[in-house]
Amino acid sequence: MAARVLELIVFLILVAFSRKICSRKFFWAFNHPAYGSAGYFLSWRLAVEANNVRAWRMVPSQCLRHVEDYMTGGQYERDIELIVDQIAEYIEGINVSEDGLDAWILDVDDTCISNLFYYRGRRYGCDPFDGPGFVAWALRGECPAIPPVLRLFQRLIEAGFKVILVTGRDKASLGEVTIANLQSQGFDGYERLIMRTREYGGKGAVAYKSAVRKLLVEEGYRIWGNVGDQWSDLQGEFVGNRTFKIPNPLYFVS
Amino acid sequence: MAARVLELIVFLILVAFSRKICSRKFFWAFNHPAYGSAGYFLSWRLAVEANNVRAWRMVPSQCLRHVEDYMTGGQYERDIELIVDQIAEYIEGINVSEDGLDAWILDVDDTCISNLFYYRGRRYGCDPFDGPGFVAWALRGECPAIPPVLRLFQRLIEAGFKVILVTGRDKASLGEVTIANLQSQGFDGYERLIMRTREYGGKGAVAYKSAVRKLLVEEGYRIWGNVGDQWSDLQGEFVGNRTFKIPNPLYFVS
Repeated sequence: MAARVLELIVFLILVAFSRKICSRKFFWAFNHPAYGSAGYFLSWRLAVEANNVRAWRMVPSQCLRHVEDYMTGGQYERDIELIVDQIAEYIEGINVSEDGLDAWILDVDDTCISNLFYYRGRRYGCDPFDGPGFVAWALRGECPAIPPVLRLFQRLIEAGFKVILVTGRDKASLGEVTIANLQSQGFDGYERLIMRTREYGGKGAVAYKSAVRKLLVEEGYRIWGNVGDQWSDLQGEFVGNRTFKIPNPLYFVS
Repeated sequence: MAARVLELIVFLILVAFSRKICSRKFFWAFNHPAYGSAGYFLSWRLAVEANNVRAWRMVPSQCLRHVEDYMTGGQYERDIELIVDQIAEYIEGINVSEDGLDAWILDVDDTCISNLFYYRGRRYGCDPFDGPGFVAWALRGECPAIPPVLRLFQRLIEAGFKVILVTGRDKASLGEVTIANLQSQGFDGYERLIMRTREYGGKGAVAYKSAVRKLLVEEGYRIWGNVGDQWSDLQGEFVGNRTFKIPNPLYFVS
């Protein structure tokens, strides 16, 4: 009988120990260097989105696992959904005129359509940018829509806004495929797709996009909103009445 | 013997089961509505810092637990440290002149010194702003320094910059106590503390701080950097060569 009691005690201790190991694992998950890198990634990502970290060339390599989790685990899309909700609230308060000049500007890459599949092959931005590789990817015309932004796009058009897509993509080499890619992903009914022509070759994004917006304002458009994944989409001149920054922890465009 | 074997099997099953329950709990932690609110808080906080959510009056109540964790659990300070590291890198590249006109602008509340203890009593911003309560708190002169910003402050002065503190605090009622509070927390050697005078009463923060910076630029100061916890510190005119946004998920100043 004593042996049985002893066995029971040993058993209970082992069960308790097993739980303890397990809860230690749980604890560990938040205190291990791995959590350190998760905390670092959170700080870094926040600083990127608040425009505190600029002109960065690569995602810090200790962030690889976390940037993958962020982009593919649901939080990236949730972040965009909250922004789109904010935009929807803002739109509610605008009286759209019948003169056809109430405009919104949307960036294309990683605002309307996603290059995530390409960046998966570049270790989510932990590898340096590869221009020819990116062009080869873009030429496939297979960038999927970013669902909350597609819904925003449709909502803007339904509300009577003129949606003008402005992209740094080169018109000569990527014009056709970009139109087809947008079309295949449901981006139908936009007012204009403005791509980079030779005239703007070599210009930084802020200068190029400011010049484009200036022409639009001169045409009479009222830019109510401007949505992009890069701060260079949202800075410079004629940025619009409100700007909205879509998260992008994969790359930085100056 | 068979009974012993059976016992052993039962024991092993129970141990395995115990682990399974435990790992389910772990899984649950990331899929339960509680994680939903954690994910929501992450999205909301990101959108606040990227200036996508504006003119908000209170922290959404489902964020209470998370904003407390964020502010008191280490991530808030880590976020500021990364920003201060970025500033340090930027400072390295500046040649400070001997004319005494290379300036930095720092905001005071929740940039240099913290109101976290006050906001703890306001459910970390989930309660509406209480003007008289805040004044009573500020009059105690007990705001602690935010350690990474104090180190930045000292570094700026060592590097030869003129540090100019610009705050929306009312000079007549809070002038003396603010000077004493800053002094007691180690903010020694700044060039000037500019507080709101009657002249700027009722003006929004962007207008007031732009006007102050304009006067500084007219005096000949070169504003190399501008650090604040509110976008209204960093927008408007003469914002400086670079701006840095310190996180603040507790309140919004228009």
